[in-house]
Amino acid sequence: MNSVLIQPRLPNRRPDSYSFDDMLRKPRLFTAGPTPVHPEASRALVGPHPYHRTPEFSACFDRVQAGLRAAFRTDGPVAVIAASGTGGMEAAFANLFGAKDRVAVIEGGKFGERWTQIATAYGVPTAVLTLDAGEPVAPAVVAEFVVAHQPLTGLLFSASETSTATAFDVEGIARAVREVSADIALVVDGITAVGALPIETDAWQLDAVVGGAQKGLMMPPGLAFVACSPRGWERVRAERSTPRYYFDLCRYADSALKAQTPFTPAIGLVQALDAALGAIDEAGGIGSMEDNADRLATATRAAADALGLELLSTATPSPAVTAIRAPEPGSAPQIVARLRDGHAAQVSGGQGDLKPDIFRIGHIGYVDDIDLLGLLGVLEPVLHQMGHSVELGSGVAAASAALVQHRASSRGTGE
Amino acid sequence: MNSVLIQPRLPNRRPDSYSFDDMLRKPRLFTAGPTPVHPEASRALVGPHPYHRTPEFSACFDRVQAGLRAAFRTDGPVAVIAASGTGGMEAAFANLFGAKDRVAVIEGGKFGERWTQIATAYGVPTAVLTLDAGEPVAPAVVAEFVVAHQPLTGLLFSASETSTATAFDVEGIARAVREVSADIALVVDGITAVGALPIETDAWQLDAVVGGAQKGLMMPPGLAFVACSPRGWERVRAERSTPRYYFDLCRYADSALKAQTPFTPAIGLVQALDAALGAIDEAGGIGSMEDNADRLATATRAAADALGLELLSTATPSPAVTAIRAPEPGSAPQIVARLRDGHAAQVSGGQGDLKPDIFRIGHIGYVDDIDLLGLLGVLEPVLHQMGHSVELGSGVAAASAALVQHRASSRGTGE
Repeated sequence: MNSVLIQPRLPNRRPDSYSFDDMLRKPRLFTAGPTPVHPEASRALVGPHPYHRTPEFSACFDRVQAGLRAAFRTDGPVAVIAASGTGGMEAAFANLFGAKDRVAVIEGGKFGERWTQIATAYGVPTAVLTLDAGEPVAPAVVAEFVVAHQPLTGLLFSASETSTATAFDVEGIARAVREVSADIALVVDGITAVGALPIETDAWQLDAVVGGAQKGLMMPPGLAFVACSPRGWERVRAERSTPRYYFDLCRYADSALKAQTPFTPAIGLVQALDAALGAIDEAGGIGSMEDNADRLATATRAAADALGLELLSTATPSPAVTAIRAPEPGSAPQIVARLRDGHAAQVSGGQGDLKPDIFRIGHIGYVDDIDLLGLLGVLEPVLHQMGHSVELGSGVAAASAALVQHRASSRGTGE
Repeated sequence: MNSVLIQPRLPNRRPDSYSFDDMLRKPRLFTAGPTPVHPEASRALVGPHPYHRTPEFSACFDRVQAGLRAAFRTDGPVAVIAASGTGGMEAAFANLFGAKDRVAVIEGGKFGERWTQIATAYGVPTAVLTLDAGEPVAPAVVAEFVVAHQPLTGLLFSASETSTATAFDVEGIARAVREVSADIALVVDGITAVGALPIETDAWQLDAVVGGAQKGLMMPPGLAFVACSPRGWERVRAERSTPRYYFDLCRYADSALKAQTPFTPAIGLVQALDAALGAIDEAGGIGSMEDNADRLATATRAAADALGLELLSTATPSPAVTAIRAPEPGSAPQIVARLRDGHAAQVSGGQGDLKPDIFRIGHIGYVDDIDLLGLLGVLEPVLHQMGHSVELGSGVAAASAALVQHRASSRGTGE
């Protein structure tokens, strides 16, 4: 294993030993983030990069706001923060909770754990509902947990847990929990979910939904988003016990209403986001992005099944990423390495305890049918060479049939 | 059929009806030219674009000359002309022949015909050896033709006839013809060949070899090349009967020896070529590019066979492009259209009389295994939907096995 193949395309930097494969194999991202960048966004990144206190930039930022309102399904402003997704999570937390609070966290994996770590950093007591990797959770179970651990002022969880490729029933959990605890603040990590599965910030009365650029919006990393329902914004405006400045969501909301940003924005990234959201809007909207992710996820699962591979998450697999168990326990890192070193195809390995046993194929954002079929086309001989009994072509055929069928049924339902 | 899918990624230009597929499907070139552009070349195209009468540009142009000498296997200068490939063909012709001459042309397809058209435009009588589409020709047959049509001062032909995806035995033809006519000038259209099959300009004593940027060198179109063996350069310097100025190869050769160009060069393209040739050089050289094209060609032919499809050119198929007969006569344009409209994958149709019956898959330059396997992954359901009996996955499996085997045998021979 080495990381040489990932480096040669960085500008003016080639590895010391530059092989023909380094040069010719196209580096392809099949991770659940970062994801491939849309060429219209790439072009916008090149510049020119204008001064931001201008009517032109405000017009651009207004379009970005409209696109994000559609993506997060909210009528309010969406904070656009120059930060990693974790910065958005911290902003959501710090603007809703303080030392007086006590929160619950659903920990379905690494990213669920991050909520607990943030709460701990802020000195907020936390009740943790721990799930096995890939284990689904019924809304009623979450509601029971909330009842059992009262008093609680917040519930934090991921809509799509990237580490286990598991989706959670955000709408069902929100409804069930609100029935047993009307005032509890609901905070959703939607970083890997936005663009892959619908998150209704306003309709489901979610107090805060966090997003990141580098997932379903065909963007490189660097921007975090926080959307709030009307009740969420009320709480953010009322909660002043936790110190914050850069992450003060009120500043972002007030500026956004004036088509501006509180601090110097990452101008190139905002321009690129304008291009990406504009393309999505003109091309059918965020629902079409979600449909595409769902189609690719369905095809990936069909291929895994045809190749005799098991999914980690069987009950509620995520449409953003698919976690597949290696045929032999312990062999997952070898699959990841062979795809990377032999084909410059970057899939994700497992995180933490899951590292030896799973690999994850991302299919969110700017990923199309040929990407997926090409990846499966090289995965099959990789598995074969590792001694796994594989009928060459069977995974591709199953995926291909699933893609066609999904397209037909999407059209049938008017999507 | 419409051309909407090809347009949306042009900067700032979207079609009036912009569908989700227009936005998300990645436009992929599987034509035999233009071919995909290497990212290092793309970055160089962006600029900065320096003034060309500087030591810095001369250093760049010297590197380009070294790279082209390797690609054309010559020790002499290589003319770099801001022109389409046809401009390079005309330059080669006008610098070697005049009204006193009489030439023979091997017409294996549309690009062979172009030699005849150029000769006719210059008023030079031409004896044409016409081949059926995809028909090979033995060197002895060419030699006999030359003997039968004496006096002749030149023989012009294509190394790889793109319209029929047929390769010609340049070395064998050169040797056989020289045996019967020692002084005949040998002019080779190597536009689609350079980077896909070896052309030894000096060793085979070819008087002129023409190349183009947009084929095996991972570049966009805009540059034509002419390389000459020592004897070729002698002839170019001696032949002054045909008027020429922009296409005067002596000007290009003399300038190149001073690391410059006779006219303002296409600076961005030259910089991009420097990047592409530099990458090829560091990554194992032009032989590795040829090996890659051969591997992909072998896999494409294996897939066609597994899918029950026939090749147009069976005896000497080109490593640059594969011409496949549609399962039903007349249905080839529908295959091309379905790949383009449904998947943004641009393969070539047939040219002229071949249009209804063949489609052509290019695999020259910056094309890798995943590209080809992905294309085959969508070709199979396209054929299936058109009523052709296809075992889904069988083409991909055959290609995948061929790729692995070719790699193993290339390694075995030390390539």
